[in-house]
Amino acid sequence: MHIIRYALQQQVYYGIVEEGGGIARLESGPFEGLRRSGVRDAPDAVRILTPVAMPRVFGLGYNYVAHSQEVGKKTPSLPILFMKPSTAVIGPDDAIVYPSWGENIHFEGELVVVIGKRARHVAEADALDYVLGYTCGNDISDRVLQRRESEFGCLMAGKGYDTFAPLGPAIVTGLDPSCLRIVTRVNGVVRQDGNTADLLFSVPYLIAYLSRHLTLLPGDMIMTGTPAGVGPIQVGDRIEVEIAGIGVLRNDVVADTLPGDVG
Amino acid sequence: MHIIRYALQQQVYYGIVEEGGGIARLESGPFEGLRRSGVRDAPDAVRILTPVAMPRVFGLGYNYVAHSQEVGKKTPSLPILFMKPSTAVIGPDDAIVYPSWGENIHFEGELVVVIGKRARHVAEADALDYVLGYTCGNDISDRVLQRRESEFGCLMAGKGYDTFAPLGPAIVTGLDPSCLRIVTRVNGVVRQDGNTADLLFSVPYLIAYLSRHLTLLPGDMIMTGTPAGVGPIQVGDRIEVEIAGIGVLRNDVVADTLPGDVG
Repeated sequence: MHIIRYALQQQVYYGIVEEGGGIARLESGPFEGLRRSGVRDAPDAVRILTPVAMPRVFGLGYNYVAHSQEVGKKTPSLPILFMKPSTAVIGPDDAIVYPSWGENIHFEGELVVVIGKRARHVAEADALDYVLGYTCGNDISDRVLQRRESEFGCLMAGKGYDTFAPLGPAIVTGLDPSCLRIVTRVNGVVRQDGNTADLLFSVPYLIAYLSRHLTLLPGDMIMTGTPAGVGPIQVGDRIEVEIAGIGVLRNDVVADTLPGDVG
Repeated sequence: MHIIRYALQQQVYYGIVEEGGGIARLESGPFEGLRRSGVRDAPDAVRILTPVAMPRVFGLGYNYVAHSQEVGKKTPSLPILFMKPSTAVIGPDDAIVYPSWGENIHFEGELVVVIGKRARHVAEADALDYVLGYTCGNDISDRVLQRRESEFGCLMAGKGYDTFAPLGPAIVTGLDPSCLRIVTRVNGVVRQDGNTADLLFSVPYLIAYLSRHLTLLPGDMIMTGTPAGVGPIQVGDRIEVEIAGIGVLRNDVVADTLPGDVG
């Protein structure tokens, strides 16, 4: 099932994409059950939004061995976590804003887990019961700032700029997260072609691990880490993250225009 | 002005603590203006809560040189940021839960900035206009896990356990954040006695820096880092963080009881 969040005539709704492309509007958010309202919306009339408004976003570093190798890191013995602020989140077709001082800013295509219900002290064997579904994510990263922060053992600003967490286009239920192909294209050229079969820490492990420390909440996003092939983005680029069975998350890169700038 | 958030007969309100201790209940949250409702509540009848429900929490590492020295770190040339998840936040007199596998878990008394309005690309000279007030915070940290994560340049789980971000008791307006004494006591014994005059990156600088990367929102908390004197906590300890002009944030440390455990 493909669950989308969308804007229509100044209102925001959730809906289920039906065979043929129509949208069955839901009565409420997908975390309160999936009750259809009876209204059908036309795909051409809506604008698809990021799947959850202002979510908590947990990110994973070095969760594919081939990526750790390409950036010269050893393989971690535990999940390496950071958070991206909710203000970084944008939806499909929203612009990634390249900061005026940017030097080496990278795309990172990723599978993203959408938590469906409150999870605390969950066993790995039960972990998938707490998942609503999966979406695509792009963990945009300022490598210069990341390096400067990580030298002190922390990471936030380099991953946390406004627009640096594109998520979408849909929350897809019923997928097996242990074997999904992830492809990232820049201007149509394939740059990453990975598979979640190569995740160092699996989706169930990550949920169990997180829930051992903290309470996961409905709508929480876990960006599961990026496969090999990361590289720089430039103003004017079009970045696409495609995951088999989910769809394509497409975002263009634009130049920063500070408030008050002319033009 | 001391603004508190409190529970009374199953409802949650904001109020202003008046001379003599009475509470002038507000019509709404303090971010929508400070309109008094006309109702007065008795301090004995209320339970004071953390100042903001489920806030975004930005933490600072190594923001006092004396603390960096005690843990063997050099002085950073930029703010070293991480985030603590909203589920870590507890209020005054709530219990800090010591995990069953804990080995070396530390208190860190800190001045916390409460953002009052949306801030983006704010100049350092204007930054304090975006502050509602200040409160006390305790950045509880699992040093074992922190070290293992930081080795890979990230930090989240070690700072992010449920209950590891006590905040409160009040949001205090009108303070000068450049010279506030911070004292942390464990079981009545002074363990930290610092002053925000020694902050490496000042409150205005931190707000300007953060707002250059991301949009700060009303209710966001910036934990400004801890002075020297950090040390371990144990089950049964009472930790108090006191900041001149704000008050005392007091929390007891209790053992973890997993759901389903008997006793």
